[in-house]
Amino acid sequence: MSIVDRVKFDDRGLAVAIAQDAVNGEVLMVAFMNREALQRTLETGLVHYYSRSRAKLWKKGEESGHLQRVREVRLDCDGDAILVEIEQVGVACHEGFRSCFFRRWDGSEWVVDRERGVDPAQVYKRGEP
Amino acid sequence: MSIVDRVKFDDRGLAVAIAQDAVNGEVLMVAFMNREALQRTLETGLVHYYSRSRAKLWKKGEESGHLQRVREVRLDCDGDAILVEIEQVGVACHEGFRSCFFRRWDGSEWVVDRERGVDPAQVYKRGEP
Repeated sequence: MSIVDRVKFDDRGLAVAIAQDAVNGEVLMVAFMNREALQRTLETGLVHYYSRSRAKLWKKGEESGHLQRVREVRLDCDGDAILVEIEQVGVACHEGFRSCFFRRWDGSEWVVDRERGVDPAQVYKRGEP
Repeated sequence: MSIVDRVKFDDRGLAVAIAQDAVNGEVLMVAFMNREALQRTLETGLVHYYSRSRAKLWKKGEESGHLQRVREVRLDCDGDAILVEIEQVGVACHEGFRSCFFRRWDGSEWVVDRERGVDPAQVYKRGEP
């Protein structure tokens, strides 16, 4: 069986992919994978996504060095969402936060309640989306 | 500010929503919310999604009793994904598992490596999707 069997990619050829910190359980980011991204993720042990904005395969951290090393890949009941347990090198978020979910609804507005780990210029500088 | 401000719903009016166990960090399920689902989630303290298959608002656990109580709502950097920290009543998965991500890729196939918590007939019986 290939890893893409049983995965139900949608009419755009995509499945939701969640990256979770394998160590502390923090949800780091959500993106999409197509067949190739999922296969490359398994083959290389490094998470690959499909960038909708750039319409191409995207090796996470290829430019920034903020790679995601695969520890475990899980599939949901419907087969249309993938959960990747990872070891995050550096930060997951292009804004310099460890997790992209750095904003919390406090009852009246979205507040940033996480510390920025890295200057975003250091993440952005080589063009990582 | 309303909670739907800053959320970027896609061309179908949807944003990805992840439910994470607020106690142990387990990712329980992934679904979609539209504006109404997110607003109802906040107003009621119970997670609501938008069911694409039924094309309607879906109060999680309305039929099964397996409700999701909101502890925290987070938004990602791009504003198009929502992370809801919840207390799960019963099980999140309609197949009777606590988490929908009960299958792990073992290198050659998808294996179920979680215990089923509830007979799925007990989840399904009143028509919850």
